[in-house]
Amino acid sequence: MTQTLLNDRDISFQLYEVLDTEALLRRPRYLEHSRETFDATLETARKVAERYFADHNQKGDAQEPTFDGERVHLIPETQAAWDAFAEGGFLAAHHDFEDGGMQLPEVVLRSCMAYFNAANVATTGYPFLSIGAANLIKSFASDALKARFLPPMLAGHFSGTMALTEPGQGSALADIKTAAEPDGEGRYRLRGHKMFISGGDHELTENIVHLVLAKLPDAPPGAKGISLFIVPKILVNEDGSLGERNDVALAGLLHKMGFRNTTSTVLNFGENGGAIGYLVGEPHRGLQYMFQMMNEARIGVALTAACLGYQGYRYSLDYAQQRPQGRLPSSKDPASPQVPIVAHADVRRMLLAQKAYVEGALSLCLYASSLYEDQHSAEDEATRRRAGELLDLLTPIVKSWPSRYCLQANDLAIQVLGGSGYIREYPVEQYYRDNRLNPIHEGTEGIHGLDLLGRKVMRDPAAYRLFREEVKATLGDASRHPATQDFIGPLGDALQRLDAVTESLRGQVAADPDRGLANATLYLDLFGRLVVAWIWLRQGLKAAQGLDRDDLAEADRDFYRGKLQATRYYLDWELPQINPQAELLLQGNRTCFDMHDAWF
Amino acid sequence: MTQTLLNDRDISFQLYEVLDTEALLRRPRYLEHSRETFDATLETARKVAERYFADHNQKGDAQEPTFDGERVHLIPETQAAWDAFAEGGFLAAHHDFEDGGMQLPEVVLRSCMAYFNAANVATTGYPFLSIGAANLIKSFASDALKARFLPPMLAGHFSGTMALTEPGQGSALADIKTAAEPDGEGRYRLRGHKMFISGGDHELTENIVHLVLAKLPDAPPGAKGISLFIVPKILVNEDGSLGERNDVALAGLLHKMGFRNTTSTVLNFGENGGAIGYLVGEPHRGLQYMFQMMNEARIGVALTAACLGYQGYRYSLDYAQQRPQGRLPSSKDPASPQVPIVAHADVRRMLLAQKAYVEGALSLCLYASSLYEDQHSAEDEATRRRAGELLDLLTPIVKSWPSRYCLQANDLAIQVLGGSGYIREYPVEQYYRDNRLNPIHEGTEGIHGLDLLGRKVMRDPAAYRLFREEVKATLGDASRHPATQDFIGPLGDALQRLDAVTESLRGQVAADPDRGLANATLYLDLFGRLVVAWIWLRQGLKAAQGLDRDDLAEADRDFYRGKLQATRYYLDWELPQINPQAELLLQGNRTCFDMHDAWF
Repeated sequence: MTQTLLNDRDISFQLYEVLDTEALLRRPRYLEHSRETFDATLETARKVAERYFADHNQKGDAQEPTFDGERVHLIPETQAAWDAFAEGGFLAAHHDFEDGGMQLPEVVLRSCMAYFNAANVATTGYPFLSIGAANLIKSFASDALKARFLPPMLAGHFSGTMALTEPGQGSALADIKTAAEPDGEGRYRLRGHKMFISGGDHELTENIVHLVLAKLPDAPPGAKGISLFIVPKILVNEDGSLGERNDVALAGLLHKMGFRNTTSTVLNFGENGGAIGYLVGEPHRGLQYMFQMMNEARIGVALTAACLGYQGYRYSLDYAQQRPQGRLPSSKDPASPQVPIVAHADVRRMLLAQKAYVEGALSLCLYASSLYEDQHSAEDEATRRRAGELLDLLTPIVKSWPSRYCLQANDLAIQVLGGSGYIREYPVEQYYRDNRLNPIHEGTEGIHGLDLLGRKVMRDPAAYRLFREEVKATLGDASRHPATQDFIGPLGDALQRLDAVTESLRGQVAADPDRGLANATLYLDLFGRLVVAWIWLRQGLKAAQGLDRDDLAEADRDFYRGKLQATRYYLDWELPQINPQAELLLQGNRTCFDMHDAWF
Repeated sequence: MTQTLLNDRDISFQLYEVLDTEALLRRPRYLEHSRETFDATLETARKVAERYFADHNQKGDAQEPTFDGERVHLIPETQAAWDAFAEGGFLAAHHDFEDGGMQLPEVVLRSCMAYFNAANVATTGYPFLSIGAANLIKSFASDALKARFLPPMLAGHFSGTMALTEPGQGSALADIKTAAEPDGEGRYRLRGHKMFISGGDHELTENIVHLVLAKLPDAPPGAKGISLFIVPKILVNEDGSLGERNDVALAGLLHKMGFRNTTSTVLNFGENGGAIGYLVGEPHRGLQYMFQMMNEARIGVALTAACLGYQGYRYSLDYAQQRPQGRLPSSKDPASPQVPIVAHADVRRMLLAQKAYVEGALSLCLYASSLYEDQHSAEDEATRRRAGELLDLLTPIVKSWPSRYCLQANDLAIQVLGGSGYIREYPVEQYYRDNRLNPIHEGTEGIHGLDLLGRKVMRDPAAYRLFREEVKATLGDASRHPATQDFIGPLGDALQRLDAVTESLRGQVAADPDRGLANATLYLDLFGRLVVAWIWLRQGLKAAQGLDRDDLAEADRDFYRGKLQATRYYLDWELPQINPQAELLLQGNRTCFDMHDAWF
């Protein structure tokens, strides 16, 4: 079975048909680019991913990182992958030309990342985190810190991490205990423990730049008392040369179910006098800064989930087309030849569901990236603000929906393969194990439900209205094409239902936040289903328009028909599940809320 | 964190309150038993499970079986577990006193098995298969074969397997290729390959008795041409002594995602002249015989799923009660103490869903066991027949529902633990990996959907009516208790919906089997939800009656209230999801059926 990364036709459909990525070429920042330079970058990403990342995806799982008490050992292919990624310029791809970057749009960079994730999510974890860390330093650190840390990070000599979580606090960042004290020389001494720090130790790079959340002595309690520090593994002299080892120690590696080639670490800061750190930006504003990296990482995690789902979908599709087994129910002759299992309706259901989940998730992630792009490079302020508000509203869904449903896709890929899907001799069980991380990190579903309802929807009714306008606009366009008219009614009804639920929940939360927010995760799922139905209608509409072209090749015709059928699947099979959800939310169902601890 | 097996109070509730297991004591077969002997057996099972099975559950996963080309190596604790199980008499527990058994009812034996599964599903795989193989030999083999093979199997000297699947045919047993030729001396020579044979090789026992499906030279094509053979790993002389090694070779072990301490094997039969086998029963009726073992195994697999779910539920509950993190939405003071995470409504939802899934699944499995018991030991023919028909109808659901939803329970257990749930330092990720096997073996959901709709419902309308009568009777009882009256409407409506869907599907299948059966897996899920809603109402009703007792201890009161709340959860949150499913089925939705291979 030959495994290829993603479906190039789909990437091109997303970038140039669903999104109008070529329109970016008119923005001053991208004037020196062309569709050809975008495509050439994608092609390079695909090739590097195939050659240096896909080669050890299975091996990195079977031979996970080890720590001998002194050093972390990774399989050597990881180093080759890091080097190839850096040499390909991907660490700096979206940075300015003058900083050694390629000034590529976010949506193109994310598409490149999709190839790396499809090849090997765990090894891609290292550059993924480093890119986010560099972005954060670029946005908020002083020029002196930028000058010291950014060039080696963009060149791949240093890597980066985000060091937030602690053993005692998990998702509740307000309660972190790591302390930072000024040392009188403009630097700080940090003391504390961080846990689940991905890429927290390894020897892929000369140095590791930890972005650490900690509290200053005069910090107000809670989330408003958190500051952000750069804490390098090895101290960096002002001339950029490496100094002594900083007081940051690897306490141990954690042993994950999947995603194994990304080290997950427990780090001790300051056990020997205090780790030297540099304050980023202003005191007590660290969480606010960190949200930039977290929000980027949330889209990144979603893309990871989408790509793992995508690989499972493509593998199980190929398997189903080649594996003969059984006959159709109508076939009475046991001597007739067996059919390939894709001929069984239930196998087609499992494949179509996977297609709807993974292509829907990819499209959602790239849409989110296009909002990020508009937020930062659109020429008029109104477009920038609108994009920012939409992205802010949708980020909990962009993070959560692909993480949940692309894991379900991987579950279906296993099921298509049957017994073969359950053994490590085939790749799909690893995708499933890898993907199980995604509903956890960068905020669990519970956290994102509270964020969506308690923060975004409650505090920013305007953003919700913007989203409605977007859906309405798509419904308007779809009503003008015969191939998409069937879809107007169901999505329009669903939008009304979401309106009613949202209105009701606003009242419920205002009246009693504990009760009103009790079912927030259910709301997150309902809202997510509607968003993805809309994402599918956008794709369905472009496919319908594509089918109208005269000069269509057979392969394109099939591609577009598949998109329309997946739209139909999502609207027929998945969207209506919001109805019982809406009823529970409208009635303010208290069954879970009322459950007593002693009754379990 | 102290991990205990199951909840003894729940086992006692299921056996003596929901089911009237004490009524069995009036049947002639069980006259020498008492509730005390049942309970003492359960207590022994729990102790043996805790001591000899739970001790190496994690180790058997981390150090999976290996094959050095000559021998299979298991961690030594596996042998101690096998020996303790055999010495405890559990291999023969349900056999007659005169055969060295304890003449225990099925439902008590299954409850014992629940403790072993909760402790270690993978090691329990060996006795589980051996019990089923011995039952099959007892039911269908000649007296001479029984005399040769049964005593050493019941004593634990021989173990057993079921050797059905082949590399080229998977679920489609009609297409097996293994051939059996008479050798002129009353025996047969078998040649062929079998795959995914659990427990197919090891050295726990002196011998392994493979129950092999193969085709005789004159076999009619398809499922009606399959015969069943006993093929021992080592030949057994007529006096019971061991002879030469038979021509059965281990080609290799398969490397599973979980369930690792059960070897999964590829076996070659007859590469050196032919493996010697003994025909069981009549030629060409092998599949029919094997269905006895498969149907038993289906309940057994479901119980495995239930117990894995149960362990995850209890572990995550304990964790949630002990782990402090965050505050309630209404809490504005960041300096106030953190609450245990069970105080968060969404964590309670995840725990309550797990409770509903795992206790529902356990109750369903024990109900199925009680039907099996009635089918075999009820004194009047009508009761026996009725129980057999109900069990036959419900077996696809009994197999499938726990396998799917207890895996979801394990997913929720991981989510409750967050990052800790994803690492092998905690047990819940292993439950999840172990449980992923259950929706695959003993028939995938696709197979059971076709079995339920295409075979059971289409061919036996009387069984469906019997099931309706059972539900109606429970509804009648529940309407007479104030604490369960809320539940009558939703379950009654759901039953009407199932009736309508079933009636419609009968017409659809009759008109066009390929189209009519296309959504059979959806029907399986819908029907399963209704069955489990009914199973919960049975529990809820008993809990309501329990709460009426005057002398109730506080712990019992909490237990019953928990049962009622879980009933409410299932009816509020889970049952209504049948409504969109029913719509798709009633409209004969063709979206998946119409999907073309080229459009993927």
